[in-house]
Amino acid sequence: MELTRRGLIKGSAAMAVVGVAGSASPMAQDPAQGGLPSWNDGPSKDAIVAFVKATTDKSSSKYVEPADRIATFDQDGTLWTEHPLYGQAQFALARLAEMAPKHPEWKQKEPFKSVLAGDRAAMAKFTEGEWIEIIAVTHTGMSNEEFTGLVKDWIATAKAPRFDRLYTDLVYQPMLEVMQYLRANGFRTYIVTGGGQEFVRAYSEKVYGVPPDQVVGSSAVTKLVDTGGKPTLMREPKVFFIDDGPGKAVGINLFIGKRPIAAFGNSGTTDFSSGDAQMLEWTQAGDGARLMMLVLHDDAKREYAYGPAVNLPDTSVGTFSEALLTKATKNAWVVISMKNDWKRIFALD
Amino acid sequence: MELTRRGLIKGSAAMAVVGVAGSASPMAQDPAQGGLPSWNDGPSKDAIVAFVKATTDKSSSKYVEPADRIATFDQDGTLWTEHPLYGQAQFALARLAEMAPKHPEWKQKEPFKSVLAGDRAAMAKFTEGEWIEIIAVTHTGMSNEEFTGLVKDWIATAKAPRFDRLYTDLVYQPMLEVMQYLRANGFRTYIVTGGGQEFVRAYSEKVYGVPPDQVVGSSAVTKLVDTGGKPTLMREPKVFFIDDGPGKAVGINLFIGKRPIAAFGNSGTTDFSSGDAQMLEWTQAGDGARLMMLVLHDDAKREYAYGPAVNLPDTSVGTFSEALLTKATKNAWVVISMKNDWKRIFALD
Repeated sequence: MELTRRGLIKGSAAMAVVGVAGSASPMAQDPAQGGLPSWNDGPSKDAIVAFVKATTDKSSSKYVEPADRIATFDQDGTLWTEHPLYGQAQFALARLAEMAPKHPEWKQKEPFKSVLAGDRAAMAKFTEGEWIEIIAVTHTGMSNEEFTGLVKDWIATAKAPRFDRLYTDLVYQPMLEVMQYLRANGFRTYIVTGGGQEFVRAYSEKVYGVPPDQVVGSSAVTKLVDTGGKPTLMREPKVFFIDDGPGKAVGINLFIGKRPIAAFGNSGTTDFSSGDAQMLEWTQAGDGARLMMLVLHDDAKREYAYGPAVNLPDTSVGTFSEALLTKATKNAWVVISMKNDWKRIFALD
Repeated sequence: MELTRRGLIKGSAAMAVVGVAGSASPMAQDPAQGGLPSWNDGPSKDAIVAFVKATTDKSSSKYVEPADRIATFDQDGTLWTEHPLYGQAQFALARLAEMAPKHPEWKQKEPFKSVLAGDRAAMAKFTEGEWIEIIAVTHTGMSNEEFTGLVKDWIATAKAPRFDRLYTDLVYQPMLEVMQYLRANGFRTYIVTGGGQEFVRAYSEKVYGVPPDQVVGSSAVTKLVDTGGKPTLMREPKVFFIDDGPGKAVGINLFIGKRPIAAFGNSGTTDFSSGDAQMLEWTQAGDGARLMMLVLHDDAKREYAYGPAVNLPDTSVGTFSEALLTKATKNAWVVISMKNDWKRIFALD
């Protein structure tokens, strides 16, 4: 429910875990003190700094009032690692395994049977309906509070496959610095994710400094029920909103009600049915100073390299399609090279 | 679409305009400087002041961190006058009249025929489907920007029936002071309305000091389309979300992601299918200090008096049912008497 079709369906194609170790390059600078210490000098860093200076300098023709300084960030692949599979999908699979003892019937029933058997070849062929079944049983049928508790418990201990680190340790240090730099300059930083709104809210304040009301995501229908005299919001196995592709522009208007002046993403399918293209286009279509940036995963050594844009196979997790690269070039969006623009990838490096 | 069923259906019962002039009692104090100058001393004012002192005093056991100081306000009947008919419904009827020349077929077709003929008896009997038709043709089939422009134009000049004043001049001065007082004490003030989110956003910042992202309301489906190379959000004739009754708890969680610690409303039907009861219950169900208040319209001289709770007929616009009064008493919610608690009603008085 809460995962987008992008996350649910195509993610399965990329479940093989790459086995290269990340490099380490310790940094001591405190990003909260300003600047972008984990960024190499170059056009990407220059674009960010020039944009912030222009929009916050009252004498600039591009000055923007603080109330309108809104920046939106995709999460998966833009703020943290999305390979080999979106964190939320990993959560769903882990939870399924945890729930299995109480559901002996799953051993005979697809799609649960394949997941429990660890049959990745079968999982790669799951239909949308099968993924929806997995999300429904793992994400709904409980209160929002229970769900948030499950996510918090999982994310406090679960390790990402390749790096053997907590998922929240795979947040990109350079992007955290951008968020902090923008906030220090009067911006509000929103997460606009195809992933689940309640899933991300469970850790967004702690990990990104982004409070719950600044997380825009996909959601399930919730229903107010009386549980023993106490009003409770129950999560129903029904999609309420898909915040992906064109839905990102819809979600931005719905939740923020103003057009961003800066937007950061990383993905776009060939037909732009999912990903960040529309978020950047929606941002750019407003008047005045604008900053649109895309993270390109071109660093197989320190993180991952994937996507047709770098002449690599389309893994379907965070696709940077050739069509997106064409669009980026045409619209003068800034493409961030992880390999060249970032001194380090993760805070722990 | 954007109006709730409460606003759409039952509103029609109360279209007769009461003809008593409002009294004038000029006040010179600037509410922005703190305090609640338009409030008489008494339990309502005491409750507000005591709550704010307790939640902002670090030595108090009821201290609340600024990030969690969230207060939600219903709009119609809580922040501004809702009689004889919700402002947004008046907008819909006005717009229908304006559009009529281009729709000669409406002269023969209900529900438009009755509206154009000014047949209030017929309008009072409109079905939900007929009101939906009126909202669909007046609120959708255009871009969000166009809609916002229409609302801004209308609200800049339209006058409310009884008072012959702008609708935005019928905002309750004492409630504005509560909002300002809360914000001066680190609270964020949200509007949580059964009315249309985009409708209210068109003036909320100017009138209430509430920015668009702090307006939670009912909404129509919007669709991202390409209009001549420019991405545009078009309003579709389809309900997306009804933020009323139980929907207010759902909407609060969806948009704010935290439970309010203070909530202000004024209405609740006998079966609580619409109104503010669930917003106050949802607020109260959290731990720690809480403030729940209901505005009672008991001042026929200066504004209106209506509802079974004051032994007056149920006008069905902003019903304060006996069931709501019972609930308020049981839960120790504070009932604000307009007549006794407010020195003045409107800023211009």
